[in-house]
Amino acid sequence: MCRWAAYLGPELFLEDVIASPCHSLIAQSHDAHEAKTRTNGDGFGVAWYGARDEPGLYRDILPAWSDQNLRSLSRQIKSHLFLAHVRASTGGVTSRMNCHPFVSGKWSFMHNGQIGHFDRLRRGLESRLDDSIYAQKLGSTDSELIFLLMLQHGLDQHPAQSLAATVNTIKAEAERIGVPAFIRLTAAFSDGQHLYAVRYATDRFAPSLYTATLSPNAGLCVVSEPLDGEAGNWMPVPPNSFVTVKDTKRIAIEPFMIADEFTPALESV
Amino acid sequence: MCRWAAYLGPELFLEDVIASPCHSLIAQSHDAHEAKTRTNGDGFGVAWYGARDEPGLYRDILPAWSDQNLRSLSRQIKSHLFLAHVRASTGGVTSRMNCHPFVSGKWSFMHNGQIGHFDRLRRGLESRLDDSIYAQKLGSTDSELIFLLMLQHGLDQHPAQSLAATVNTIKAEAERIGVPAFIRLTAAFSDGQHLYAVRYATDRFAPSLYTATLSPNAGLCVVSEPLDGEAGNWMPVPPNSFVTVKDTKRIAIEPFMIADEFTPALESV
Amino acid sequence: MCRWAAYLGPELFLEDVIASPCHSLIAQSHDAHEAKTRTNGDGFGVAWYGARDEPGLYRDILPAWSDQNLRSLSRQIKSHLFLAHVRASTGGVTSRMNCHPFVSGKWSFMHNGQIGHFDRLRRGLESRLDDSIYAQKLGSTDSELIFLLMLQHGLDQHPAQSLAATVNTIKAEAERIGVPAFIRLTAAFSDGQHLYAVRYATDRFAPSLYTATLSPNAGLCVVSEPLDGEAGNWMPVPPNSFVTVKDTKRIAIEPFMIADEFTPALESV
Amino acid sequence: MCRWAAYLGPELFLEDVIASPCHSLIAQSHDAHEAKTRTNGDGFGVAWYGARDEPGLYRDILPAWSDQNLRSLSRQIKSHLFLAHVRASTGGVTSRMNCHPFVSGKWSFMHNGQIGHFDRLRRGLESRLDDSIYAQKLGSTDSELIFLLMLQHGLDQHPAQSLAATVNTIKAEAERIGVPAFIRLTAAFSDGQHLYAVRYATDRFAPSLYTATLSPNAGLCVVSEPLDGEAGNWMPVPPNSFVTVKDTKRIAIEPFMIADEFTPALESV
Repeated sequence: MCRWAAYLGPELFLEDVIASPCHSLIAQSHDAHEAKTRTNGDGFGVAWYGARDEPGLYRDILPAWSDQNLRSLSRQIKSHLFLAHVRASTGGVTSRMNCHPFVSGKWSFMHNGQIGHFDRLRRGLESRLDDSIYAQKLGSTDSELIFLLMLQHGLDQHPAQSLAATVNTIKAEAERIGVPAFIRLTAAFSDGQHLYAVRYATDRFAPSLYTATLSPNAGLCVVSEPLDGEAGNWMPVPPNSFVTVKDTKRIAIEPFMIADEFTPALESV
Repeated sequence: MCRWAAYLGPELFLEDVIASPCHSLIAQSHDAHEAKTRTNGDGFGVAWYGARDEPGLYRDILPAWSDQNLRSLSRQIKSHLFLAHVRASTGGVTSRMNCHPFVSGKWSFMHNGQIGHFDRLRRGLESRLDDSIYAQKLGSTDSELIFLLMLQHGLDQHPAQSLAATVNTIKAEAERIGVPAFIRLTAAFSDGQHLYAVRYATDRFAPSLYTATLSPNAGLCVVSEPLDGEAGNWMPVPPNSFVTVKDTKRIAIEPFMIADEFTPALESV
Repeated sequence: MCRWAAYLGPELFLEDVIASPCHSLIAQSHDAHEAKTRTNGDGFGVAWYGARDEPGLYRDILPAWSDQNLRSLSRQIKSHLFLAHVRASTGGVTSRMNCHPFVSGKWSFMHNGQIGHFDRLRRGLESRLDDSIYAQKLGSTDSELIFLLMLQHGLDQHPAQSLAATVNTIKAEAERIGVPAFIRLTAAFSDGQHLYAVRYATDRFAPSLYTATLSPNAGLCVVSEPLDGEAGNWMPVPPNSFVTVKDTKRIAIEPFMIADEFTPALESV
Repeated sequence: MCRWAAYLGPELFLEDVIASPCHSLIAQSHDAHEAKTRTNGDGFGVAWYGARDEPGLYRDILPAWSDQNLRSLSRQIKSHLFLAHVRASTGGVTSRMNCHPFVSGKWSFMHNGQIGHFDRLRRGLESRLDDSIYAQKLGSTDSELIFLLMLQHGLDQHPAQSLAATVNTIKAEAERIGVPAFIRLTAAFSDGQHLYAVRYATDRFAPSLYTATLSPNAGLCVVSEPLDGEAGNWMPVPPNSFVTVKDTKRIAIEPFMIADEFTPALESV
């Protein structure tokens, strides 16, 4: 289980989310409150949108709390849209290639959760990928594979549906090999324009997800747990929800994978 | 505050102390019970005596729990005498040079604790070192400096006295610049023959220190906290004590820095 | 293109091969003479046999020339059989998982060379692996995949044939997808008892391979290039040869992949 | 001996200097032409000025050629003024704290060269530093100490004189302990407004230094060796010169340490 935070809104320094709040992401790397594992010291990463269509990416294997580069970069870099992640491995080795976010073209993706029986599902799932997408696989985590499956299932055309199709693919593969489908999935992803998030699980324990504006004039944060440690200031996102943030004023929270049909409908806040 | 474990006795694999016990040093790196900081993820190190007079040294900046090399090395390397350490920084940056143990010739040293006001005491203390000893300084921690001061004060000739002289030097320097002397010092060190340890503080909170034999036929461990998580199986070393382990059957625990005089006297267990 | 050195014989310190010779493996990491790339700074690794059936493994992403741990470990660890490697990436990222040697159970393997069109051949080759072998894949290099294919093709039962079958599999896959087969392969591997090596290429440029005894009483080295920089002291292994070292006195060099049949025959030196 | 490049002018992506030119700094890390050591693989760093008074700083111990983070960061970050460095150690260990540039407040500094007999001069030189400056020392290189001595000698008030005073201090200390003064010093430094550089040596072998505009509309580069490998496009800076770049059109090259007096005089190009 990991911790992450995403931001969309007026440009601000990465450190305003990553380092400065009292329960900032760096603080959570050392002492998370709502995570299965208190310590998230198995690497970190940040993807931010700025001067290019594709995001910048900085990932390393040190704990976030001890990386001097992260401190300096997050003090210098401003962005209107970024994803930041601290990792607690549920199996994969600690390497840069296994650190989130993962990036492909303009897309970035990060994840908190896991696929049960992943070691047995892995090959069947990988076989669903086209060569061009498979070639992008650099690590060995379930999280990276979820992202690649989303690309396979049309992330570019319809983000929510690609994620639903990915979940269904995992379920189908589990059924095929005869293991119970077990998925916990709280993820954020972006194409550089909108910010998407999901909170989902096949059981009752979907990893926590909150949203709030950092301040009256700042943009919107979507996070694993409140950056100020004050749950009262944050809106919990219900389990089995899909979140679309178009801008600070337009956030839509819809059911995800509850019924057969999935009908996204963007609403004003 | 860090965690450490030292061993002297019949040869055993490093992993029997570092990785295998239920509350092994690697387990403590993730979840220490008696430390000020639960997580000890700012690097680790092990010094072991074997084929040479000087010890082997393996240190790295990853958390001990995620280092595959440490797992493999501790499964392969046998030693009759070794020191292992997981670090929680109280200030210094995370670098290999700041990881314990520190080594000089045949001596190895590791430490849990800190010198108060170290930033103000540092230069005065460094000025006490001969050029040849100062030249060995590679990092920037108070721990390394304690070790160098011990070398300066005759570690080779009389280990306990060199440590007492080091403590007195730190106190004198604090007095000289007008800050209260504040030292917490639970350390282990070795010349490849004997194993020495100390538990000391200028206040009532000397960091914990325990000793026990791992099994009827195994040697003696001196540790920050019990390797099996069972305090009942371990003998706590009282505060302000100096420990000398000559072999599994001969361990001496004497007062340290309590009165003016310091009279080591080796006793049978 | 990488550099490597393997040893079998009376126990000696790893440093006697890795660090001490004038053109040691560490020296070659900085300045190789016969390699396509002079610098081999993309990580290193060593696998050695000792107290366990499976080898110890130490790999890291720094250049070998600057790793203090490697210096200390190779001064302390003695072995009668070990493989050491310095890497110059031909494509894969620099990560520990991509560093040689690769290890599986009692087997270790390291490689200098490459598979042409690997990005296009990769999936087809991976599909030949059983689940249990595929699950061991942690990196993304052609070298690791060669090793896994050898395991697939019966490395345990008949080492040379498993390698020949692997080469044939690669050729067949190239033919299947319509690219010319291009393989350069100078590798060493061991089960902890014998040391095997191969020098092979589909063109005239099989990477160099030499063998020699380090000294009258020492064991046998098989290397990418002479450890003393003196080609005259070393016996070049001809291209398309398979080498079996049973002990210092028994080394067999046989044709590899030259005709259809492959008839290993062990000979005294 | 290291390689470095500095830029001042209209904002451009760091990669336009670090990664894109045919003989870019990353290319030089692998294969320098005019350096004593062809490989500069002992870490790298970049300091850039942007949103804050103090520069951003990214340093790591990998060779520049294999660091994915450096590639991404230099594609995203734009700056009007930056310093970038690839390191070839002349003694100090490979650690982030020993990588250039060094930063203090608004100042950044990087260096190619060395102080002869540094191990014997080090303590005497350190003793010249005020406590507040000494406290900034994190590594163990001669380069960092030169920077701290410049801060000590009034870098804020008069950059060239502070460097001259530093050179004189080193010479005086060498004389005091009775070793010949030997200094090679090709350095760049900045306060976020101007870019300064020096080419100096006590012998006839001052490390090379060139300057050129990257393109008609781009700013000015000051470099260890030409970024396009074409010496004809670059102006060599004579030995014993001090360079001040106020903007693209105003560069002054003056004698440094040639006579007793040092009279800076800014000229138009």
